[in-house]
Amino acid sequence: MGISLSSADRRAGLAGRTPSVATLCSHSSLQIFYGARQEGLPTLGLAIGPPHRYYDAFPLARPDRFLSVPKVDQLPTVAPELKRSGAIVIPHGSFVEYLGPERFAQMDVPVFGNRAVIAWESDRRKEREWLELAHVSMPRRFEDASEVDGPAIVKYYGAKGGKGFFLAKNRESLKDFRPTGPYVIQEYVLGTRYYVHFFYSPLSDRGYRVGHGSLELLGMDRRDEANIDELYKLGAQEELLKAGIRPTFVVTGNVPVVLRESLLPKVFDAAARIVERSIELFGGMVGPFCLEGIMTEDFDFKVFEISTRIVAGTNLFTSGSPYSDYVAPGLSMGRRIAQEIQRGVALDRLDEILS
Amino acid sequence: MGISLSSADRRAGLAGRTPSVATLCSHSSLQIFYGARQEGLPTLGLAIGPPHRYYDAFPLARPDRFLSVPKVDQLPTVAPELKRSGAIVIPHGSFVEYLGPERFAQMDVPVFGNRAVIAWESDRRKEREWLELAHVSMPRRFEDASEVDGPAIVKYYGAKGGKGFFLAKNRESLKDFRPTGPYVIQEYVLGTRYYVHFFYSPLSDRGYRVGHGSLELLGMDRRDEANIDELYKLGAQEELLKAGIRPTFVVTGNVPVVLRESLLPKVFDAAARIVERSIELFGGMVGPFCLEGIMTEDFDFKVFEISTRIVAGTNLFTSGSPYSDYVAPGLSMGRRIAQEIQRGVALDRLDEILS
Amino acid sequence: MGISLSSADRRAGLAGRTPSVATLCSHSSLQIFYGARQEGLPTLGLAIGPPHRYYDAFPLARPDRFLSVPKVDQLPTVAPELKRSGAIVIPHGSFVEYLGPERFAQMDVPVFGNRAVIAWESDRRKEREWLELAHVSMPRRFEDASEVDGPAIVKYYGAKGGKGFFLAKNRESLKDFRPTGPYVIQEYVLGTRYYVHFFYSPLSDRGYRVGHGSLELLGMDRRDEANIDELYKLGAQEELLKAGIRPTFVVTGNVPVVLRESLLPKVFDAAARIVERSIELFGGMVGPFCLEGIMTEDFDFKVFEISTRIVAGTNLFTSGSPYSDYVAPGLSMGRRIAQEIQRGVALDRLDEILS
Repeated sequence: MGISLSSADRRAGLAGRTPSVATLCSHSSLQIFYGARQEGLPTLGLAIGPPHRYYDAFPLARPDRFLSVPKVDQLPTVAPELKRSGAIVIPHGSFVEYLGPERFAQMDVPVFGNRAVIAWESDRRKEREWLELAHVSMPRRFEDASEVDGPAIVKYYGAKGGKGFFLAKNRESLKDFRPTGPYVIQEYVLGTRYYVHFFYSPLSDRGYRVGHGSLELLGMDRRDEANIDELYKLGAQEELLKAGIRPTFVVTGNVPVVLRESLLPKVFDAAARIVERSIELFGGMVGPFCLEGIMTEDFDFKVFEISTRIVAGTNLFTSGSPYSDYVAPGLSMGRRIAQEIQRGVALDRLDEILS
Repeated sequence: MGISLSSADRRAGLAGRTPSVATLCSHSSLQIFYGARQEGLPTLGLAIGPPHRYYDAFPLARPDRFLSVPKVDQLPTVAPELKRSGAIVIPHGSFVEYLGPERFAQMDVPVFGNRAVIAWESDRRKEREWLELAHVSMPRRFEDASEVDGPAIVKYYGAKGGKGFFLAKNRESLKDFRPTGPYVIQEYVLGTRYYVHFFYSPLSDRGYRVGHGSLELLGMDRRDEANIDELYKLGAQEELLKAGIRPTFVVTGNVPVVLRESLLPKVFDAAARIVERSIELFGGMVGPFCLEGIMTEDFDFKVFEISTRIVAGTNLFTSGSPYSDYVAPGLSMGRRIAQEIQRGVALDRLDEILS
Repeated sequence: MGISLSSADRRAGLAGRTPSVATLCSHSSLQIFYGARQEGLPTLGLAIGPPHRYYDAFPLARPDRFLSVPKVDQLPTVAPELKRSGAIVIPHGSFVEYLGPERFAQMDVPVFGNRAVIAWESDRRKEREWLELAHVSMPRRFEDASEVDGPAIVKYYGAKGGKGFFLAKNRESLKDFRPTGPYVIQEYVLGTRYYVHFFYSPLSDRGYRVGHGSLELLGMDRRDEANIDELYKLGAQEELLKAGIRPTFVVTGNVPVVLRESLLPKVFDAAARIVERSIELFGGMVGPFCLEGIMTEDFDFKVFEISTRIVAGTNLFTSGSPYSDYVAPGLSMGRRIAQEIQRGVALDRLDEILS
C-alpha cells in the first residue's frame, strides 16, 4: 500500500474522527456490521434498491443506517457521501463481483485492505503465478486433453459459482465434453475440501510473524454445492448424464469443519509463503483471505483457489470458531476487521491497512 | 387463537402464578428444559415409564421433576396434575406423533402455540393448500407416473421418518416401484437441503413485522439420513438395488449449516407469507416453525415440508446459532420459547400464545 | 489403577504442588493446553524437533513452555524432566501411536487415566472381547469370505488411518479383493456414523452414576474421510475401480453433529456397560473415551471402535458443544480433563485418576 497520493486523498475524510464501517448489503454483511458494532464503530449498509427487511430480524447486525442506489452500477456515485461520513468500505466477494474488479479498484473511497490484490486474484493466470512463486502445492493444469492421466475438471473462464463445470473420471470420459467457450482443464484432486480463513495483520508485532506483521487462522468451513453434493442419491453419474442430469457446483451455503491438528503446519506454511510473495509482488495483502484446497489421502494440501477478502464461510462463526476462540473467545472475522481498524486509528497507522 | 371458552378454562390454573414448562422427555426436551431454566421457569418432564437416566448427565437441562405414565396413551391422564401445577405444555414432533394429532389437539392443558395448526400440518393435502395459498415454491406433485418428466420421489401416505421412500432418476426407473399402499409421486428437486428454524412472536412489536407480530430466524441445519447419506460409498444405486440394498431416509441426527446471505430474502419472504396465510386460515401460528426445502442451482427455494413446532435440528444450537446470536447472544429456540412465555405473563397476554 | 508402588513412585513429584499439564504437540494439544490454562494449570508442550510456529497464532492455547527431543523415540528421555516439573502427561491418539503402545505404557511419568487400558484397546481381539462382554451391538466379523451375506469391509491388521480398506457391496464383489497381508472381514453396516465423546469421572459422586463415579457426554462429531467422502462425485465406484481409482478412508478432519434425543439412551447404556466391564477387567477407564458407531435405519447403534482417550473430533468443541453446555457452559474436553486434575488435587485423590 504505502502512502500513494490518491490513497491519502481518499483517507482525508478520516482524519481525527471515528471511522464508520460500510459494506454492500449481502454476502457477509451481517457479520461485518455485527463485528463493527461490537468494537464500537458506526455502520452503514449500501443497498441496491430498498434494503431487504431481513436486517430487521437481526437487531444486533442491522447497520445504523442504509444508503441506497437504484442499480448496482450507480454504487460509485455514493463515494462522496461515504467520504463525508468517514466511511471505510469493507470489500467482500459479492461487492467485487457485482461491481466488477476494475470499477471496484477505482472507487474513490478508502477501502479496507490493499486493492492492488484484485488484479492478482481476478485473473486466473496471475493468481496461479503468485501461488507458484509461493511454492504452493496446486492441482496440475493441462494444456491439452491428451495430457490428462487421471480424473480431471474443466472450468470455463469467468464461469460464475460453479455452473458449467465438467468432471471426468479419466481422459476417456473427457471426450463427452463439448466446449462452448474458452476453458481450462485441471487435475481433479481426490480428497477432502477445506476452506481455511486467515487474517493477515500488518499492524501486529506478536503472534505468528510474517513480514512485519502477523498471520492468524480464524476458522474453516466446507461449501455446500447444489446439486453435486446430493446427486449421488439418484444413482451413478454415468447413468444420470445419460438421463440428461448434469452435476453443477453452485455454492448455496457452508458447513463448519476442523482439520487434523497435525495438518495445521501445512496450511500455515502455505499461507505464510503466499503472504510473503504478496508483499514482494504488490505491497502485500491486508486482512482476511481464504485458502481453498483439497487434503489428499497423503496429506498434501492442494490449493485450487485463493480469495483475498472475507468469504461467506466465515458466516458460520458469528460468535467464534474452534480456532478463533484460541485468539480471543467469541472472535468473528467481522469483529477482527473492526479491531484492525480500531488499532489503525489508535496507532495512527490507518494508511497501512487502507487503500 | 383468541379467547375461546375452553382455552380460557385450560388456562385458569395459570392465573397469578409463575407457569412451569412441561414437555415429553424426548426430541428436544433437554433444550426446552435448559431454556426454561435460563429464564427462571420451573420445569416438568413427562416420561413414558421411568425417565431415562441420561437427564442425570446433563444437570443444567434436567427437569425439576418428572411425571411418569406407564404407556403413551395414558398421557392425557396427567392433564389434571399439569393444570394443578400451572404447567404450559410445549409440543414437539415426537409429542404429537406419539399421541396422535387428534388426541394431542384434545389434551385438556394449556399448550404453547395454536393447536389449530395441527389439523393443517398433519394432513398433507391441507398443508399443500396452505403453502400454495402462500405462493411458496414447492416440488411438483404428479397425479400419475406418466406425467413424470425428470427425477421423482415416491412417498407413502403416513410413512414415518423416511422409510419406504422410493427415488427414481426418471420415468423409466419409476417402473421398478411396486406400491404396497397409497402414495404420492413428487418431483425430486436437485439441490442442497436446508431446514430453516423460524420463530413467530405475536407479542413482539419490533423487528421483522408480520401480521401484528414479528418473525425471527434462529438457525439452520441439515438432517442426517440413514442410510442414503452413506450409501454411495458402496457403489452405484442401480447396482445396489440389484444386490437387494435399498436406500432409506430415516433421520438419525443433524449437522449445522448456514445459507448464502443473498438467499436470506427468499426464505424470509416465504416464511412471512406462510405466517400471513396462517393468520387468515386458522388464527395464526405461534412460536417455532421450520421450513424444509431444497435450494436449487438457480437459487429457487423449493419447500417440501413445514413443521409447525420446534424441530430436533435446533438441538445443535443449545447456546446460540450463527443467526440467533444476532438476535441475542447465545439464544436457543428453547430459551426463546421460555422468553415468550415470560413476556406473555409480564404483558398479561398469555391468551395470545397459548391454546 | 489403585496405588501400585510404581504408580505412587511416578506421582512422588506431584506432592504438595500445582501439577502442570504436558502433552505431545499434535492431535488435540491446542485444546488440552487451552483447557488447562482456563483451569489455572501450567502447561508444557512436548515437541519432536523444534515446535511448529502455529502455536504462536493461538496465544490462548500456546503452552507455557516447550520441551523438544530430536526424534520421537527419544520422548522417554524427557521423563525425568517431566517428573521434576510436576507434570501430568495427557495421552492422545497420536501420542500413543507415535511412541507405540508398549513404550507409552512404560513411560516413567504420571499419566492421566489408566494405562492398563492400552493393552485392551490396541489389540483388536481384546477390544472386541471387552465390548462383547459389555453386550454392545457390533458389526459382525466373518471368519471366511464364504460367510459374507451382504455388504462387507476388509481391514488389514494394523492398517493406519483407513488406507487400504476394501469395501464390497456383497460376496460377489469381495472376489476383487487381493490380500497383501493379514486382514479381518467385517459386516459393512449401513447407516450414519457418529463419534460420541464421553468422559468417565471416578471422582464425581453425582450425575449419571456408573461404578463409583459418573459418566458424562460432552460432544459428537463425524470424521471427514479422504477420499471416500467425495469420490461419488466422479461416478460409480465400480467404474472408478476399473479406472484405477481406489477409495480410501484416511481421516483429515471433523464435522459437528447431534443425534436424535430419543437415541441418547442407547449410546448412554452402551457406554455405561463398557465402563462397568472396564472396571472389572482392568481397574477401569478414566477420563475421555469415544464410541465410534453407525446408527442404522432401525436405530441400532453398532459400535465398530472404541478410543480410550481424547479424540480429535473434540477439537470442534473448543468452547463447548450442544451437549457439554448442559454440563457447564463452554466446557471443552480439554478443560474437563484439567478440572478432573484440579479436583483430584483438592480431594487428595490424584492416585485414582493417574497411573
